[in-house]
Amino acid sequence: MNTPNEKVGILGAGLVGSLLSLYLKRRGYDVELYERRGDMRRHGYVGGRSINLAMSERGWNALRAVGIADEIFKVGLPMSGRLMHNLDGTETYQPYGKEGQAIFSVSRGALNQKLVEMAEAEGVKIRFDYRATQVDLNNGVAQVVQTGSLIPQMVPKDIWFGADGSGSAMRMAMQVQDRFEYSQTYIDHGYKEFEIKPNADGSWKMRHDVLHIWARGNFMMIALPNPGGDFTLTLFFPWHGPLSFAAIQTDAQIQHFFSEYFPDLQQLMPDYVQQFKEHVTSSLVTVKCGPWVNGKCALIGDAAHAIVPFYGQGMNCGFEDVFQLDQYLAQGATLTEVLGPWAAARKPNADAIAELAMINFVEMRDKVNDQRFLLQKKIEAQFATLYPDKWLPMYSQVTFTNTPYAQALANGLQQDKLMQPILDLPHAEQIPNDGELVKQIWEAHISK
Amino acid sequence: MNTPNEKVGILGAGLVGSLLSLYLKRRGYDVELYERRGDMRRHGYVGGRSINLAMSERGWNALRAVGIADEIFKVGLPMSGRLMHNLDGTETYQPYGKEGQAIFSVSRGALNQKLVEMAEAEGVKIRFDYRATQVDLNNGVAQVVQTGSLIPQMVPKDIWFGADGSGSAMRMAMQVQDRFEYSQTYIDHGYKEFEIKPNADGSWKMRHDVLHIWARGNFMMIALPNPGGDFTLTLFFPWHGPLSFAAIQTDAQIQHFFSEYFPDLQQLMPDYVQQFKEHVTSSLVTVKCGPWVNGKCALIGDAAHAIVPFYGQGMNCGFEDVFQLDQYLAQGATLTEVLGPWAAARKPNADAIAELAMINFVEMRDKVNDQRFLLQKKIEAQFATLYPDKWLPMYSQVTFTNTPYAQALANGLQQDKLMQPILDLPHAEQIPNDGELVKQIWEAHISK
Repeated sequence: MNTPNEKVGILGAGLVGSLLSLYLKRRGYDVELYERRGDMRRHGYVGGRSINLAMSERGWNALRAVGIADEIFKVGLPMSGRLMHNLDGTETYQPYGKEGQAIFSVSRGALNQKLVEMAEAEGVKIRFDYRATQVDLNNGVAQVVQTGSLIPQMVPKDIWFGADGSGSAMRMAMQVQDRFEYSQTYIDHGYKEFEIKPNADGSWKMRHDVLHIWARGNFMMIALPNPGGDFTLTLFFPWHGPLSFAAIQTDAQIQHFFSEYFPDLQQLMPDYVQQFKEHVTSSLVTVKCGPWVNGKCALIGDAAHAIVPFYGQGMNCGFEDVFQLDQYLAQGATLTEVLGPWAAARKPNADAIAELAMINFVEMRDKVNDQRFLLQKKIEAQFATLYPDKWLPMYSQVTFTNTPYAQALANGLQQDKLMQPILDLPHAEQIPNDGELVKQIWEAHISK
Repeated sequence: MNTPNEKVGILGAGLVGSLLSLYLKRRGYDVELYERRGDMRRHGYVGGRSINLAMSERGWNALRAVGIADEIFKVGLPMSGRLMHNLDGTETYQPYGKEGQAIFSVSRGALNQKLVEMAEAEGVKIRFDYRATQVDLNNGVAQVVQTGSLIPQMVPKDIWFGADGSGSAMRMAMQVQDRFEYSQTYIDHGYKEFEIKPNADGSWKMRHDVLHIWARGNFMMIALPNPGGDFTLTLFFPWHGPLSFAAIQTDAQIQHFFSEYFPDLQQLMPDYVQQFKEHVTSSLVTVKCGPWVNGKCALIGDAAHAIVPFYGQGMNCGFEDVFQLDQYLAQGATLTEVLGPWAAARKPNADAIAELAMINFVEMRDKVNDQRFLLQKKIEAQFATLYPDKWLPMYSQVTFTNTPYAQALANGLQQDKLMQPILDLPHAEQIPNDGELVKQIWEAHISK
């Protein structure tokens, strides 16, 4: 392979930007990374508000290719399924996939730091405390300003990537170009994070091998375990309405709300009133846009396709962006040549995961309590066990394979259509408990 | 009525901004209007590219209230219906409404100039050659820069309106606020304008009492008459594909294209090749956003809801924005008090006309050649004649009444549903020619 001549600049040293820099450096590119925040190794990590992430196959796949999957894997906490905390105090467990399959709770800060360290060790130049104020797309010049300075610097590159997140400065420059498609859509729910502290001996106060869900219809709380024995909880709750952030504000209102909907959490998190009042409430946005490539510039990760977090795929999708781009480079073409084809192929998949993430929000907060939905999942699990080559549930396709998101979505919609007549059968309830019946149903409804 | 204390600034002295200034001035507000272009009375009109507009009831209604409807009416050219120029050289006429109803071809420049003159005469302060570079929404401060100057001026007002069009500077400031919904969507078609010059004696080369349409399936040409004897033509044509702006570029290609699809225009417009090559090709955007009101600032007109031009409602909708706002003020409340309720009530109607405009694009370019569609229009016209209180076609509701757009759309969808079984009748073709049959069909399908 020849050494590429193109000089590459990347805006944003977050997860996607730093991974991208590492991939491109290994392909021989001269790579410079500009990050508006300070060096996390000196100042501590002050990235996005979410502390942990759910890493699944697409994320691992991208990390494997640069040889750091094992190291991250060791410190990740496997979560094999959803543990639903019902309002009556009972619990319901739903595995995410087959025996042995899990998604992993991973520390965002630790992962980001590791990626930055590796990039730097391999020769990527990282400029912390530089924020992009303007981007000249056609000439490939970013205007950056160092923190504390008033004097902008003009940085020319052959290619600039915008890995600068959902509020991307590069995307803002693209948005005022003719025929740039753009939308930013907020859901009616905001979110607030809480923390359940470890026991005195450092152990976890709940099971740490599952993702906990308190599904309450129009809203929900989830909890992911952290290696230090604590849990990060996230309440997804409407901004407005009778039961909402706007309506729940005083100590008494917060206490009443928790007593009614999360009584178990009052025990596990005695300072919940204080946390509710002190922690920020944040919004959730979906950003869609295109084309991602304009002049000498290209968007990647959240800058190109910010999604809601309900499928746990935001980072996984961004990492897959990088992996897919590298697949094009592996065929020997230059970065300039492959950007267009890569973006065109990637866009339908980004749109699909955005849609899947919205579908999963309704599923997590509402349907996990729905008998018909739970029955469907059980029958699908039986199909998947008996006919693993022919039936892989959509969640598994998204989470445990590298099947393109758009294909996984299409497959899932088709499966859902096939399942409806089965769920309408008078004896549908008996199916999951009767292996012979499962086979008969398969023959009659699916295999034909 | 007390004199209001609020000082109002308006960005943009286009049609909506200048009309708004006039309305507010008459309510006693101190109004200042900032326009980035020079004074059109000294420099000539250099506004949007479209030379003429189709004024209909909502526009007239807003002009009537400030007493200039008559004056504009006198110079407008009534167009009573669509005249379809078919590929085989035949023509088909379809009236827009009842006998005597018409939409009016009006000169954008003349109308804008008239509004500016009236505003100034009544004491509105107009600052030409000032462009807004930033807006502080919460404090109601616009940063403006005079043409040729480098020094920004900060202008505080109690209320700022953004009437600054589809590329609104105020909206850009809103877009980076949390939970601002925003989308810009381009259609696959661009447009290019042409001109058919008058005969040597100054007369029109075609009928000047209709809107001409050359509907060609996936694309179309339209023509509106101007008072000077000329016509403004607009070709709506795909950007890409086998038959597109990208594919038709050389003299030979342009000649071939016109020979095949617009042979009559080759005669009427001998310099069509030159015009095709010299005139710009422009894009068509739909902008949706919300909330329109943020802090001390409010969007209005295209800045709040740019739409595609196929229902001829862009200006009419913007003028209705102004008229509706004034209806709130007429009840005695202050501008600050009414902005929120006005915007909330107005938004669903802006969304509806955006949808209607897209529906009409398909109808104009494709369905006006469809036998079933034409039959539907004929039967509906019969219903409208026989039962004028009970059946008003959707086009008429939008064009000849002030029925809220959202209600007109809902009514139209309901009518369309009612019409389908009628069009499926084996003798459907005979209905429009048989008054008795129309009554029977009405009794059997509609009135029940």
